[in-house]
Amino acid sequence: MLKGAFSSLDDYSAPFRRFGALRLVRYLVLAIGLMAMAALTEPNLRAAAGLWLNLLLWCCLVYFAVETAMGINAARRQGKAWQHLLSLSGIVELFAVFPVPIALACGTPPETAWLFASLWVLKLAQNSPGFAQLGRVFVLEAKPLASVLVLFLIVLFLASAAMHVVERNEQPSAFGTLPSSLWWAVVTLTTTGYGDVVPRTALGRLLGAGVMICGIATFGLWTGILATGFAAERRRRNFIETWDVVSKVPFFQSLDPSAITEITHMLRRVEVPERTAVIRRGRVGDCMYFIAAGEVEVDVMPTPVRLGEGAFFGELALLGDMIRTANVSTTKASTLLVLDLADFRTLMAHHSELARAIDAEAQRRLGDIQRRRELHLHGGIAPA
Amino acid sequence: MLKGAFSSLDDYSAPFRRFGALRLVRYLVLAIGLMAMAALTEPNLRAAAGLWLNLLLWCCLVYFAVETAMGINAARRQGKAWQHLLSLSGIVELFAVFPVPIALACGTPPETAWLFASLWVLKLAQNSPGFAQLGRVFVLEAKPLASVLVLFLIVLFLASAAMHVVERNEQPSAFGTLPSSLWWAVVTLTTTGYGDVVPRTALGRLLGAGVMICGIATFGLWTGILATGFAAERRRRNFIETWDVVSKVPFFQSLDPSAITEITHMLRRVEVPERTAVIRRGRVGDCMYFIAAGEVEVDVMPTPVRLGEGAFFGELALLGDMIRTANVSTTKASTLLVLDLADFRTLMAHHSELARAIDAEAQRRLGDIQRRRELHLHGGIAPA
Amino acid sequence: MLKGAFSSLDDYSAPFRRFGALRLVRYLVLAIGLMAMAALTEPNLRAAAGLWLNLLLWCCLVYFAVETAMGINAARRQGKAWQHLLSLSGIVELFAVFPVPIALACGTPPETAWLFASLWVLKLAQNSPGFAQLGRVFVLEAKPLASVLVLFLIVLFLASAAMHVVERNEQPSAFGTLPSSLWWAVVTLTTTGYGDVVPRTALGRLLGAGVMICGIATFGLWTGILATGFAAERRRRNFIETWDVVSKVPFFQSLDPSAITEITHMLRRVEVPERTAVIRRGRVGDCMYFIAAGEVEVDVMPTPVRLGEGAFFGELALLGDMIRTANVSTTKASTLLVLDLADFRTLMAHHSELARAIDAEAQRRLGDIQRRRELHLHGGIAPA
Amino acid sequence: MLKGAFSSLDDYSAPFRRFGALRLVRYLVLAIGLMAMAALTEPNLRAAAGLWLNLLLWCCLVYFAVETAMGINAARRQGKAWQHLLSLSGIVELFAVFPVPIALACGTPPETAWLFASLWVLKLAQNSPGFAQLGRVFVLEAKPLASVLVLFLIVLFLASAAMHVVERNEQPSAFGTLPSSLWWAVVTLTTTGYGDVVPRTALGRLLGAGVMICGIATFGLWTGILATGFAAERRRRNFIETWDVVSKVPFFQSLDPSAITEITHMLRRVEVPERTAVIRRGRVGDCMYFIAAGEVEVDVMPTPVRLGEGAFFGELALLGDMIRTANVSTTKASTLLVLDLADFRTLMAHHSELARAIDAEAQRRLGDIQRRRELHLHGGIAPA
Repeated sequence: MLKGAFSSLDDYSAPFRRFGALRLVRYLVLAIGLMAMAALTEPNLRAAAGLWLNLLLWCCLVYFAVETAMGINAARRQGKAWQHLLSLSGIVELFAVFPVPIALACGTPPETAWLFASLWVLKLAQNSPGFAQLGRVFVLEAKPLASVLVLFLIVLFLASAAMHVVERNEQPSAFGTLPSSLWWAVVTLTTTGYGDVVPRTALGRLLGAGVMICGIATFGLWTGILATGFAAERRRRNFIETWDVVSKVPFFQSLDPSAITEITHMLRRVEVPERTAVIRRGRVGDCMYFIAAGEVEVDVMPTPVRLGEGAFFGELALLGDMIRTANVSTTKASTLLVLDLADFRTLMAHHSELARAIDAEAQRRLGDIQRRRELHLHGGIAPA
Repeated sequence: MLKGAFSSLDDYSAPFRRFGALRLVRYLVLAIGLMAMAALTEPNLRAAAGLWLNLLLWCCLVYFAVETAMGINAARRQGKAWQHLLSLSGIVELFAVFPVPIALACGTPPETAWLFASLWVLKLAQNSPGFAQLGRVFVLEAKPLASVLVLFLIVLFLASAAMHVVERNEQPSAFGTLPSSLWWAVVTLTTTGYGDVVPRTALGRLLGAGVMICGIATFGLWTGILATGFAAERRRRNFIETWDVVSKVPFFQSLDPSAITEITHMLRRVEVPERTAVIRRGRVGDCMYFIAAGEVEVDVMPTPVRLGEGAFFGELALLGDMIRTANVSTTKASTLLVLDLADFRTLMAHHSELARAIDAEAQRRLGDIQRRRELHLHGGIAPA
Repeated sequence: MLKGAFSSLDDYSAPFRRFGALRLVRYLVLAIGLMAMAALTEPNLRAAAGLWLNLLLWCCLVYFAVETAMGINAARRQGKAWQHLLSLSGIVELFAVFPVPIALACGTPPETAWLFASLWVLKLAQNSPGFAQLGRVFVLEAKPLASVLVLFLIVLFLASAAMHVVERNEQPSAFGTLPSSLWWAVVTLTTTGYGDVVPRTALGRLLGAGVMICGIATFGLWTGILATGFAAERRRRNFIETWDVVSKVPFFQSLDPSAITEITHMLRRVEVPERTAVIRRGRVGDCMYFIAAGEVEVDVMPTPVRLGEGAFFGELALLGDMIRTANVSTTKASTLLVLDLADFRTLMAHHSELARAIDAEAQRRLGDIQRRRELHLHGGIAPA
Repeated sequence: MLKGAFSSLDDYSAPFRRFGALRLVRYLVLAIGLMAMAALTEPNLRAAAGLWLNLLLWCCLVYFAVETAMGINAARRQGKAWQHLLSLSGIVELFAVFPVPIALACGTPPETAWLFASLWVLKLAQNSPGFAQLGRVFVLEAKPLASVLVLFLIVLFLASAAMHVVERNEQPSAFGTLPSSLWWAVVTLTTTGYGDVVPRTALGRLLGAGVMICGIATFGLWTGILATGFAAERRRRNFIETWDVVSKVPFFQSLDPSAITEITHMLRRVEVPERTAVIRRGRVGDCMYFIAAGEVEVDVMPTPVRLGEGAFFGELALLGDMIRTANVSTTKASTLLVLDLADFRTLMAHHSELARAIDAEAQRRLGDIQRRRELHLHGGIAPA
């Protein structure tokens, strides 16, 4: 059944719930604003509800203006006002606020002026995770990507000049000039293929087939370069994200630096908001967790146990039959380090001292669970 | 010739033959149901054979209802009825059964009500292998994928606003409103390129070319991220699938944990149904097998030899001239661990004790084959 | 300049020149046959030169028939006639010969019967290198690829049912029936986008945008899976291709098995036909060569030196300033093992005994070159 | 905010500023020439400003002729005139100069003759970095790529023959002949999808759907192969680029060859022009730098410190809290080796002698900064 297959996803859904309320409001305002702007360009809607749409847009603008002002103010208090304004984030905020009023002041008709509100969509990029990562991939692979672009340009120009010669007599309106021929070449090389301009002669079609195949080859190279770059960047980013947290977990501090490096490559950092279930009893488990910051509660009988920074949990399933034995949830926002089963096995195999420590703790816990259950059954309560 | 090249595929075709009869019936019912539903929307067919199509659809529905009822019953007996209903598999089953009767009860005309039968296609996902894997890739790479989507949205909005300004006077019906301009942008950014809405001004075409190239860049990033994520997930999944089987093979138990981890990464788990040929004499062989569960029969002269759990076979070809020396087939459904030639060499090089054990067994077998042949030729039969 | 950049390609162009004459003839016949077949479907050409085209096609057919007969004969002499006929190669050969005569015998008009000649194109696959590799990728990744296909089918069916409901009143001819709606969904999901069927309502366009984005996501997964599978298969294939050659080079035989495994992963096997330049003096060199089979000639002054199996060359450039010091070409068809600079450095660093051996040989050669030059200048000739 | 995320990009933007003035002029001439050529094909512009456009084109031609002559002259002085002319770079230069005059001399009308000026676009490839890299990927993966092309051809031919049979009666003009059917197959297999030729029968559409899915499968394989090939080539290229620089840094020379090889794989070579900021105080830093050639200035109080070849900088942020403590900029064009945080940690863990050396230097610098500050505060100036 799908159930078993998907249950492990459950352990990873936590990041989706970490959406702050303020951010939600911003995205709501953004969505409403963009929809109002789009609606304003529809003549029917403008006639029917133009006033209300304008009002809505002004409200959104005011919201963004207030947000921007607060941002600048906060930066000013830290003495970084200029730095903030010149940063990408600051520029995005200014772009969201000023163009529309300036355009209106210049006498642009409102329906055109409000089109500048489409710049609001840049707000999405402001706090979006991973943008820097994508940027770095493009920068690190700049040389080969530039080569692919050059290849693209060369094929583009030669193909359109050749097509112009071949088809200009047959279709003067479509291939009569080089610029229109270039348009065909771009549409074909990117495999978009609108079909508004299509070769009709046999030679033109042969040339067209060649251009399409070149397009796919170029595209494949492009994707291959980005895939390679992204794989390297992903590994690097994961290490950096994990490293500073790993070094704070006491459990790892007894290890030599080489082992810590190895572990850092294996762990994945996950931020979990408060009161979120991390592990559910009875589910199939394929990872264990280290607590880098925060606290979790394990609901063992009769009283739940709390684990704080530096502790680990979820190892019982990995050492036993893969079935989770207890519910675990966070009591406050926590940073967890996830260790997958495959890496857990490798780690245990390479570092016997770690294996012994985890094993000992697991034995202690199993004994503890056993004793607690017995006490619970006999009505007594353990002192610790 | 192609023959030699493809012969090694033969060793891997086994998984395709493991299709249970019950599952086959379900897929047949599914195919018939979907085809009947599609046929019902054709006016001619509806007029000619509407009654029969309706009957066919009701039969399929009843089949799925019975299947669902049995599924719930089975879960109820294990005391997991609710858990089953709330799982993805349970929801899919309910979606397959209820929407059509409910729609009919609400008075929807039958040809519309039966369209809900398209939900039956979800049944395909129920037992499809690897769905969890794909899901995990999306979840683990959620951050960069979200960034790419945001990039997509930003380009989409800015491009359509710009295009609206550039082309609205030239083509009021196509780019006159922002929503229609957005439609063009989506069609172009995904390189679908219907061609129903196409820029005609020089500036519009330049902008269009830019959007197409952005589309390809975004798409390349998207593919790169998924490729990276999938590679990591594949490695992890293979380890987990193999690990619990490896630890049961006695042959590996003498190894230290570090070596077991190394081997687990090299092995690939394959389920083979009963009476299936695994190795064919005279073919080129590039892997050896360990039996994790089940039994195989090696047809050496004069009496076949049976190998059970923990045994291995196929190593003679790897140690010799790559030609298989005997047919091997399963006698019951078996779980085999496949070790490719490249990994076999690496393993032999790193673990001399393993190399010696496999070598000794291979020598023993070669001697055995030799002795058996001689006995066979001289009419005698070996006692063992 | 581009010159320097491309010069190293030169070392790799050899495989392209290894095209046997017989194979060239076959491909020529194939090309002529396919073109004649295509020409026969053009009414004008058929009227003008039908007889000649028919004759040409019969000639091609006879050629393939002779080839097939020879192939069967050769197999029969080895007692493998049936095995040959049932192999992929044999089936392809039969498909090339029989369908056309059978169709003609059945009374099909010649222009339709000759269309079966398009099966001749399968001949391309017969000796094409790497087909087995691609096949293995699909087989090994069968599970996740099947999941992607299932995902594709689910989106396809649900999208077309939804689109049918949304657009059937607006465009009865395009979305009036589910099959025609399915056609739209396929064209859109694969991002082909003919544009013959396009949603026109706002809701339909929103749905269409969703389908396009799903299409790209599915496609990205598909590509990611194939990329991952291919990377694994490539590494494996390279090891297998190289291994049996490496073990025959005496130079490596002194190494322990672990080192041989390491080296095997680094080397790349290249087949070079006779009288082909492998190294050109003055070019930038970034690899060295080991001779697994065959012989090369190094044209040092005054008399060229011949190197046979087990020898190596090209190491002077790697140890020195990267400029090739002499021309090297094969005297007969040879199998070379290429070691790239990066791997050369790693190898030298890890295996000091190898480093010493290569270094000693390089010193000896440099001294030899020096001595020969001096002797040449003084008119004397060295005894060796 | 985005600011923090993007700030580290800053360290990588240097390569973009390294554009020589001469090269800029060439690209300017190239752009003007190509635009003039395109303008010449527009009847309106030709009528209005044909003379001026012709003049512009002649100027560009003369510029390229002079460039070519200078190139040949420079090569001749090195005695490599023929080698230069026969190199790719030389051929490109000749193609840029001769075709137009020859065409004009042959009596071709000027607007057609000038189309040969589109060959100028090849000039882009002349000095473009990474072209050799892309070429090598295609050459090294030639076998599997050829297989994909063969697969493409087979599907193409069989699909178009089948489509011809299925649709020739329905649409004689579109599918009546095999060549036109081939055109449809190419457009569909590459997922270009013009829509000028579209199947209309049910069987034709089913076949078309199959062809589209085959197209995506083929394309995925193609991309996968290129991605794999590029990853290997990237790693190799990086090693070669870095190796000769690493061996010149005195700091690494005390290490054993195995460690040097390891480090070489970790470092990335970056060329920085003179007077360029490498590190900005207060930014988040995630890498350190080794100076392979050139000189940098660290602006510590009261007098800046200059670091020359073999020195390193930026390690304080990695050892401390990741915040850069000083501005660093180059005083002349320099070659730097970048070591990312992840690799820095790994290196420190594996090579304790390196860790100690870097740590000692960091301590010395911190003490130095402290002492300098104190002296500055007390008005004294340190003698060194």
